[in-house]
Amino acid sequence: MTAFLRNAWYMASWSHEVPDGGFLARRFLDKPWVIWRKADGDLVMMADRCPHRFVPLSRGARDGDTLRCGYHGLAFDGSGACAHNPFTGQPLDIARVDVLPVVEKHTGVWFWPGDADKADPALIPDYAFLDHDRPLHRGHLTMDASYELVIDNLMDLSHAEFIHKDSFGVNGSLLSHGQHQVVQDDDGAIWNNWTMPDSTPPSWAVPMLPEGALIDQWLHMRWQAPSCLALFIGLARSGTNRTEMVVPPMADPHILTPATPTSTHYFYTHEPTPEAFALLEQAFLEEDHPILHAQQEAMGETDFWDMRPVILPSDAGAIRVRRRMMQLRRAEAGVAEQ
Amino acid sequence: MTAFLRNAWYMASWSHEVPDGGFLARRFLDKPWVIWRKADGDLVMMADRCPHRFVPLSRGARDGDTLRCGYHGLAFDGSGACAHNPFTGQPLDIARVDVLPVVEKHTGVWFWPGDADKADPALIPDYAFLDHDRPLHRGHLTMDASYELVIDNLMDLSHAEFIHKDSFGVNGSLLSHGQHQVVQDDDGAIWNNWTMPDSTPPSWAVPMLPEGALIDQWLHMRWQAPSCLALFIGLARSGTNRTEMVVPPMADPHILTPATPTSTHYFYTHEPTPEAFALLEQAFLEEDHPILHAQQEAMGETDFWDMRPVILPSDAGAIRVRRRMMQLRRAEAGVAEQ
Amino acid sequence: MTAFLRNAWYMASWSHEVPDGGFLARRFLDKPWVIWRKADGDLVMMADRCPHRFVPLSRGARDGDTLRCGYHGLAFDGSGACAHNPFTGQPLDIARVDVLPVVEKHTGVWFWPGDADKADPALIPDYAFLDHDRPLHRGHLTMDASYELVIDNLMDLSHAEFIHKDSFGVNGSLLSHGQHQVVQDDDGAIWNNWTMPDSTPPSWAVPMLPEGALIDQWLHMRWQAPSCLALFIGLARSGTNRTEMVVPPMADPHILTPATPTSTHYFYTHEPTPEAFALLEQAFLEEDHPILHAQQEAMGETDFWDMRPVILPSDAGAIRVRRRMMQLRRAEAGVAEQ
Repeated sequence: MTAFLRNAWYMASWSHEVPDGGFLARRFLDKPWVIWRKADGDLVMMADRCPHRFVPLSRGARDGDTLRCGYHGLAFDGSGACAHNPFTGQPLDIARVDVLPVVEKHTGVWFWPGDADKADPALIPDYAFLDHDRPLHRGHLTMDASYELVIDNLMDLSHAEFIHKDSFGVNGSLLSHGQHQVVQDDDGAIWNNWTMPDSTPPSWAVPMLPEGALIDQWLHMRWQAPSCLALFIGLARSGTNRTEMVVPPMADPHILTPATPTSTHYFYTHEPTPEAFALLEQAFLEEDHPILHAQQEAMGETDFWDMRPVILPSDAGAIRVRRRMMQLRRAEAGVAEQ
Repeated sequence: MTAFLRNAWYMASWSHEVPDGGFLARRFLDKPWVIWRKADGDLVMMADRCPHRFVPLSRGARDGDTLRCGYHGLAFDGSGACAHNPFTGQPLDIARVDVLPVVEKHTGVWFWPGDADKADPALIPDYAFLDHDRPLHRGHLTMDASYELVIDNLMDLSHAEFIHKDSFGVNGSLLSHGQHQVVQDDDGAIWNNWTMPDSTPPSWAVPMLPEGALIDQWLHMRWQAPSCLALFIGLARSGTNRTEMVVPPMADPHILTPATPTSTHYFYTHEPTPEAFALLEQAFLEEDHPILHAQQEAMGETDFWDMRPVILPSDAGAIRVRRRMMQLRRAEAGVAEQ
Repeated sequence: MTAFLRNAWYMASWSHEVPDGGFLARRFLDKPWVIWRKADGDLVMMADRCPHRFVPLSRGARDGDTLRCGYHGLAFDGSGACAHNPFTGQPLDIARVDVLPVVEKHTGVWFWPGDADKADPALIPDYAFLDHDRPLHRGHLTMDASYELVIDNLMDLSHAEFIHKDSFGVNGSLLSHGQHQVVQDDDGAIWNNWTMPDSTPPSWAVPMLPEGALIDQWLHMRWQAPSCLALFIGLARSGTNRTEMVVPPMADPHILTPATPTSTHYFYTHEPTPEAFALLEQAFLEEDHPILHAQQEAMGETDFWDMRPVILPSDAGAIRVRRRMMQLRRAEAGVAEQ
């Protein structure tokens, strides 16, 4: 198993998932964490393990601006200090839990598992397209596959023609006949761009167009380390040089955070309608997930490259990301070794 | 765990289990395989793993004389070659899946996981007694125990007096008072033969005989490497020197193929009646299986001989098979080492 | 995983759990055992594994003063000797199963897994308070946590104020404001004693007292190696120097025996009423067990000390026991090494 990148921002949850007065417990990078909000609204992210007898603090209860262990009552504040020992009524200096830098941005909660002094919020990937007040369903699910396999999936959308032909109604040979380009930004983002000029529109767009009209269509997937993706979709009338859009440009977050080496949190959004919910359920849980999990089972604990995968031109984006992650992990390991 | 013998014929399925236009996916020798039939009726047995991203091909679909991966659409033909890459519309030379020699014989499908040039169909064990058109139920089940433990079970039928006293109605001390002989054929088959002269008939045979009549009875179990067994049963009127049979001689296949080191495919037949079905279900699933699985659990990953088993005279056939298998595995490993 | 102490008495079951004419199968110290009673009433404790093909003997049946394997019929007597081989009708000297010293005392069945010549019944911990004919429910359950974690739990009853506040109704800060003392007996027993003078009575005792009356209350937990505990409870009217008891002194066994490294048999008693049963179910299964199991999961296979636990003054009893067990294990390993 390859190590997780530590000096990076990961998404822990949507903001609304952390309840006032309560807490949210989740596994990240193969360790248990608990997230809660102080009375002043500030977030706390702490190791979900009491340093006394290792019981998850999430089996305890909130007590003011502390989280109290359910076994012997030690209470920890937002700095990770033991603020109250019931046997003395005093703080207990020798007991501390790890806390991580945590920031609320773009309607999500972000944490930095590495060196705290490097945790610059400006490094959080840009999801400004989520900063609005329109109704939107912000969802979370877990996939039983490595985050790297989910990235592979997203960085090669050509799979949609096979896996998602029933849900998204991608017509038979759209992407495979499209133009494919991989671009790297100055800031390290890697884009996997599909462009389909003069293509037939997807079924849902047909009613918006004159009969038989063709469209220019593009699907741009952006990846930012370690596992933050966003899909930008455009549909324009053919021959208008992208000036006459069929619908406004669309952007969707696909934000991944490793739960364990073989399971992944997946944060996504969709329109707040039952139809959109049903479509995402089908695409993610009935179509993608069985394939990704079968892939994970087939690989077991074997490294991806040791499996000697066949590389296709359509893999260019995914492979570029894997190489970039390898560089970043090596750089981090090198720093740690000095 | 001991290695599986590679240069040998194993049974994959009954012929009727491979559907026209579809496929049959099964685990053999701890790897996933998929079996399908081309339009001309020829069988194909290929690794159930796409060389591109390792998804089981059995999650895809048949497309003419190919099997197409469900993830990105690569299609493989009966030679294991990638005959179609949807991104180019062309074959993809660098992508191949393993295919194995596969032969249909004695109403079953047989495969050879070793060196293909040694795969002589004449080496398939003789089950000619299955080559008939009479109605017969050809069944398959999986036992959660090593194939070697199932062979032990079959090569020492004395267990029937204890495990199967309710199902087969073997009378109390039939085998334990019988004559026992182990014979090895010139072709390597090992026979474990029980003969019970002047014995009381089984309950089902009583109505066919004069009251109080005794019979000569024999149960001959034949083993052929690696795990192909057959039981030959005879019942004759005592004192007729086996000339006056009570019923025609019976022969039953007990063909085993390792699924994993601790689970085994079991191919068997019975008369196509509900009573015969119920009897086999009871004997195999309610009587044999719990004992074999408990035995496997007790052994865990420990080698049989490291468990220091007590050896009884009635184990002679089973022990002879274990020794023969050890010789064959060593010979194969020796060839591989050169 | 630390080794189990071998030269020690462990409780296998309550006497009434071993059925006449049958047997009781249980896992102890990570091995399977079977306990049965001969016609003369003497107990037998033997390895639950046939030496012939390793099937659990508990899948067989009693046959007089033997236990007969269900697979091939070898029958073993109370000395572990194979008394009957159905193929010869004779004993089979080469087949033996391990038997352990086993003693019935204090209404329980005790076994000694170490050197048989050291198995002195006088060393069985004193539970004479169980030797009476009054109705009493003697119960057994299994906790999915190491016996050492269950001992920790019992040797620090301060957890009751947090885990058991709903069941036992321990008032908010009873123990944490009490006096705490750890005492070691000459015979090696370690006592963790809580004394709460002039305290408010538990809710169940309030109706027995004048309104507003205070009590002197004590909870003395006794541990004896390896994992035999007993709780002695007293409630007396304040100011009477413990002469005027509210109820007679109470004593409860809390006897633990490792099933596996991470699961533990728990033997306990309660009054034979539905209310007492419900209270124990709640306290043990709904309150203690989830915490202990979560603790075990958090620790995984890591050694307790390698987890660098914070030590509180209230841990003194539990830590004293862990140190004593370490000494005993080292002494035993040293003897074995000579």
